[in-house]
Amino acid sequence: MYGAIEAGGTKFNLALANDRGKIIKEKTLATGSPQEVLDQIISFYRQNPVQALGVGLFGPVDLDPSRETFGYLLKTPKEAWRNYPFYKKLSQALPGTKLALDTDVNVAGLGEYYLGNGLGKKSLLYLTIGTGIGGGYILKGRPLQGLSHPEMGHILLRPHPQDSFPGTCPYHDYCLEGMAAGPSIYGRYKKFGQDLDPNHEVWTFLAYYLAQALVSYTVVLRPDQITLGGGVMHSPNLLTRVRENFADLFHNYLDLPPLEDYIKTPHLKDRSGIFGALLLVLDENTKKQLILDSDLEREN
Amino acid sequence: MYGAIEAGGTKFNLALANDRGKIIKEKTLATGSPQEVLDQIISFYRQNPVQALGVGLFGPVDLDPSRETFGYLLKTPKEAWRNYPFYKKLSQALPGTKLALDTDVNVAGLGEYYLGNGLGKKSLLYLTIGTGIGGGYILKGRPLQGLSHPEMGHILLRPHPQDSFPGTCPYHDYCLEGMAAGPSIYGRYKKFGQDLDPNHEVWTFLAYYLAQALVSYTVVLRPDQITLGGGVMHSPNLLTRVRENFADLFHNYLDLPPLEDYIKTPHLKDRSGIFGALLLVLDENTKKQLILDSDLEREN
Repeated sequence: MYGAIEAGGTKFNLALANDRGKIIKEKTLATGSPQEVLDQIISFYRQNPVQALGVGLFGPVDLDPSRETFGYLLKTPKEAWRNYPFYKKLSQALPGTKLALDTDVNVAGLGEYYLGNGLGKKSLLYLTIGTGIGGGYILKGRPLQGLSHPEMGHILLRPHPQDSFPGTCPYHDYCLEGMAAGPSIYGRYKKFGQDLDPNHEVWTFLAYYLAQALVSYTVVLRPDQITLGGGVMHSPNLLTRVRENFADLFHNYLDLPPLEDYIKTPHLKDRSGIFGALLLVLDENTKKQLILDSDLEREN
Repeated sequence: MYGAIEAGGTKFNLALANDRGKIIKEKTLATGSPQEVLDQIISFYRQNPVQALGVGLFGPVDLDPSRETFGYLLKTPKEAWRNYPFYKKLSQALPGTKLALDTDVNVAGLGEYYLGNGLGKKSLLYLTIGTGIGGGYILKGRPLQGLSHPEMGHILLRPHPQDSFPGTCPYHDYCLEGMAAGPSIYGRYKKFGQDLDPNHEVWTFLAYYLAQALVSYTVVLRPDQITLGGGVMHSPNLLTRVRENFADLFHNYLDLPPLEDYIKTPHLKDRSGIFGALLLVLDENTKKQLILDSDLEREN
């Protein structure tokens, strides 16, 4: 049996998968205090023992295995979790279970790479557009070390001529996260995105900023596919507008796949992360089995 | 003996190195027609036979070894060279010589990584700011496949408030290459950079654009060091201004080395490329010897 945890700032999803990689049991917890969450994780995996457990952890998290602080949460806004040695606590509590850890964005990228938009591709850039904007770059099946981290959202942009808002980022005026993450909407209008009309000007702005950033990511990283996840992308028509703005800005500079394939929301919807966490620990045969099963499912 | 060729759009440098990696003979040719150049290369390496020859080639060039057109020049503005099968011609002319090929920017990056600014670092981003702007990202000693290509210069920027020039790029308004490569200077003032005062406003603009791009490269690629090569960087004070603008825009968002180390012009000056081309083909022991000799030289 295999385990997978998608550890987010709002909730934790725990999953149990069989030897085909099929998820057969799940549990969702609120992200309470570290101790509460840990107790429930331990209880779940003691009742449902697993040989290996993959974790996609909200960040920032130290992923350098050479450091003492490997697997610690870093300066997260969630105070109770700051400097919490998540990986160490988990491995002490589940001795004999092989653990693997990566960021939430990287595992979502892995899920899409193997089971979603990345099928048949060499590389995939996963971006999450939510309360923040982070990115994970998956190359030949692995998150690229040093290139997959939450800072990717701080790429600099030029303002839309009708948008006077300088952004919410305390570090940079006009960076992507400051201009296009969820809080930028509230920052401009004191309303949340879901309360604004799909034709509200904010979507024009967000599409413009996201497209600008995608042009720059494209020329720097040359991904084969870009997947845009996160709550902000749920807004109707935003994806279409991002593609339109991208076409305007990119101007066919390089040969890319049709934009309907190149820029997409997650094929696995909200399941990219949990599947990606699972993929961190599946052995090669089980991984192949899961990919095969998922292909068959897609064809039917 | 080893050979190295730095093949640029203006001139070709040919070098011969001994079994310590020391360059003992060199020759410079103008970039005439492909056949003229090839004849001179063949004549040089027939007189000075080498076991292996590394080439840093101006681009765009096809570097995908799985393609028929590997080593072909692509849509270069130099018409006589367009679609020229450089690698194939060279390997036919020098049978028995092991060839290795990469872009001019990647080999310059390699040179700096091993023998210059990259000493002791895990990654280095080399940018050339010349008639165009291209980049090569060296990670753990190797140009990162798919991440090292001339398109990197087309990252999008916001205009400086005093600069009304939209750039020279036929594809993108306000992209780095269009706003900060050499031709942007002539495009604005009908003068060349070397004829403009070091206090001319153009250097304010260029520093602003380069710094913006460096912020975005930094958050996307997280290089340990950035080396800025190319003719435009010869302008006095430009480097200092780039660092100042970078500090303003980046706002200490991440822990970086002191900017005097983080952003530099090439340690090897105009020798990064020829040494990088050589490094493509040195065996491990010779490479170590060359690095050692270069360290000793630096200490003295």
